[in-house]
Amino acid sequence: MTIEILQDSPDKVRETEDAATREARMPSSLVAHFGPDEPLRLDAGRALSPFQIAYTTHGTLNADKSNAILVCHALTGDQYVASRNPVTGKPGWWSTLVGEGKPLDPSRYFIICSNVIGGCMGSTGPAALDPATGEPYALDLPVLTIRDMVRAQAMLVDRLGIDTLFAVVGGSMGGMQVLEWAVTYKDRVFAALPIATGARHSSQNIAFHEVGRQAVVADPEWRAGRYILEGTRPHKGLAVARMAAHVTYLSEAALQRKFGRNLQDREALGFGFDADFQIESYLRHQGMTFVDRFDANSYLYMTRAMDYFDIAAEYGGSLAEAFRGTRTRFCLVSFSSDWLFPTEENRAVVHALNAAAASVSFVEIETDRGHDAFLLDEPELFDAIRGFISSAARLRGL
Amino acid sequence: MTIEILQDSPDKVRETEDAATREARMPSSLVAHFGPDEPLRLDAGRALSPFQIAYTTHGTLNADKSNAILVCHALTGDQYVASRNPVTGKPGWWSTLVGEGKPLDPSRYFIICSNVIGGCMGSTGPAALDPATGEPYALDLPVLTIRDMVRAQAMLVDRLGIDTLFAVVGGSMGGMQVLEWAVTYKDRVFAALPIATGARHSSQNIAFHEVGRQAVVADPEWRAGRYILEGTRPHKGLAVARMAAHVTYLSEAALQRKFGRNLQDREALGFGFDADFQIESYLRHQGMTFVDRFDANSYLYMTRAMDYFDIAAEYGGSLAEAFRGTRTRFCLVSFSSDWLFPTEENRAVVHALNAAAASVSFVEIETDRGHDAFLLDEPELFDAIRGFISSAARLRGL
Repeated sequence: MTIEILQDSPDKVRETEDAATREARMPSSLVAHFGPDEPLRLDAGRALSPFQIAYTTHGTLNADKSNAILVCHALTGDQYVASRNPVTGKPGWWSTLVGEGKPLDPSRYFIICSNVIGGCMGSTGPAALDPATGEPYALDLPVLTIRDMVRAQAMLVDRLGIDTLFAVVGGSMGGMQVLEWAVTYKDRVFAALPIATGARHSSQNIAFHEVGRQAVVADPEWRAGRYILEGTRPHKGLAVARMAAHVTYLSEAALQRKFGRNLQDREALGFGFDADFQIESYLRHQGMTFVDRFDANSYLYMTRAMDYFDIAAEYGGSLAEAFRGTRTRFCLVSFSSDWLFPTEENRAVVHALNAAAASVSFVEIETDRGHDAFLLDEPELFDAIRGFISSAARLRGL
Repeated sequence: MTIEILQDSPDKVRETEDAATREARMPSSLVAHFGPDEPLRLDAGRALSPFQIAYTTHGTLNADKSNAILVCHALTGDQYVASRNPVTGKPGWWSTLVGEGKPLDPSRYFIICSNVIGGCMGSTGPAALDPATGEPYALDLPVLTIRDMVRAQAMLVDRLGIDTLFAVVGGSMGGMQVLEWAVTYKDRVFAALPIATGARHSSQNIAFHEVGRQAVVADPEWRAGRYILEGTRPHKGLAVARMAAHVTYLSEAALQRKFGRNLQDREALGFGFDADFQIESYLRHQGMTFVDRFDANSYLYMTRAMDYFDIAAEYGGSLAEAFRGTRTRFCLVSFSSDWLFPTEENRAVVHALNAAAASVSFVEIETDRGHDAFLLDEPELFDAIRGFISSAARLRGL
């Protein structure tokens, strides 16, 4: 068993000080290394080896190792679920949910959050060195799937000596991982909490991801993916991708309420192409700050993994068949104004679970905050999670 | 009065054979020149002079000049409403609607369609030569508004000797022009048919336009707008902008029905970044073909004009006030799955017209085809237009 504090990661290129390299130098994550004897089998039909997983933990694993909760992050998330993010300096992305007295309380549970395979915050991704060439993988890293991510997490959970996770929790791409866990490791998940997600990526969602990918690859600084080696960064393309995606995380009603047609720092229209409207400044800011913390190739891999996600595909198109035999307790949560993963997508999972005779509860939360609601201060979400986790904990004897 | 067949437009730069220059050489449009004595007054507080408007007509103006219908085109449309487009070689964009025996029948009506000011199909736009510098305007062209477009159309209508238009018809940005006509030239519009539009551009719509603009300006070939002079073209950026916009013209249901998760020319996922899904190929194709027919700076100006559109703004925020005193007959049409201009946006116009005691009818058409429905073969749309136009024609004594 090799678990060590990540101080200096050898498989990172460090010519320029970007997010991945800053993180690699920060002793803020744990990291698990998997050597040549422990390859990660990939859906692409190849294996990834060696590889590493960066992760954080909160709380203490109890004696019978029954109180572990795995939190799965979304597309641009990371392992800093409840601790200060060393790259952005901001609090953990779900520190509203994970902490003392909060629904996921480290004084009761052992909480694990790992950067997904393909990511850019310390786990092996396209910026890592390919042992075959000694250069960053770039696009030579095989395309990854949600199941690959989950398979890597299972190897981490094995490494931590945990047989069955008390709960797996996540929203959006994190929710996809939760569903994949419940299907692929049926006996290893006591309770599953997929939030704002679906069992497959819709045509429209693929379309928006494709726009983002094309924005990245249209940037000449992307250099066919070899930008790290060539000392460039496709910041402009990645910023456009983020802007396009960000609109889809919100809702028309929330945008109208928050920004409407309000002007930015001016009393009248400027009759130019500077940001006249607050919504324009807001989006530009989202794009600009994103490129400081995220790797462009990782963005390609993460979006591709989501696009490939379609649980029923391997079960003759039957989602119920995928869940057949499960004894996991499920709670699904959707948001009424989420148009990336609308309630009906979540409900389709609920129906399949019903058909598979699973234990399942479902909450649709009324809000105008769109898909992003799962990351925001939504009391109803916290109440739902607290209620479900407490009840499952009683059943589990915690 | 200067109306001549457009054979060779002097205010076009022609180093490379792009859409605007091909069109400039084609004798397929009429063109009206407005010299130094007839400047176009702009909302930006400046004047455009000289300028020209390229247009087509179908049918014959009757003796008392009472049968003229002005058709207004959308963001990327042009004057080829019912005749072969010389750039794409395709039939006119609304040839389903305009033609013998169709709702807008040239044997009864004199149909005019002009390329908007700021466009790239023969009317003066950012690719035209700035007389002050002898170089293409690029971003030195003042930012234009929907009202500027309509003011230019009114000068064309004057030039044609027409006092009152029998009808003004258009969808999307064309519908904005229809509403602007009805407000700015209250006595010159007998009947108005705004389709799939709104009285202002929403925050979310501005957001998507801003994504498109940033995609264009992120392309280094854009050269701060001076690409014509420098012999480059921001094709990649413009293609990304088009892809992003195109998703918004459709609906999730139509995408799911038409493409779903169907694969493109393959039996299994490719585990790469080529187009795996049909929706990806479709979008890439949309982007690639668009850049052959549209000018990148025109795209910036058109989207800006739509973003600036807010009829009520000059009437103390009261849309009803804007329409006060109108005697125009209105028919509004919306599509149930249009999320760019949802039915409620159209209905807000209807309510304002009701409050202004105007004659107004309203049809919401049930379809899953999204915003694009106004350009498609939608029998209900044709029936609605035919019914409204016929009834108005009787009232007008045509």
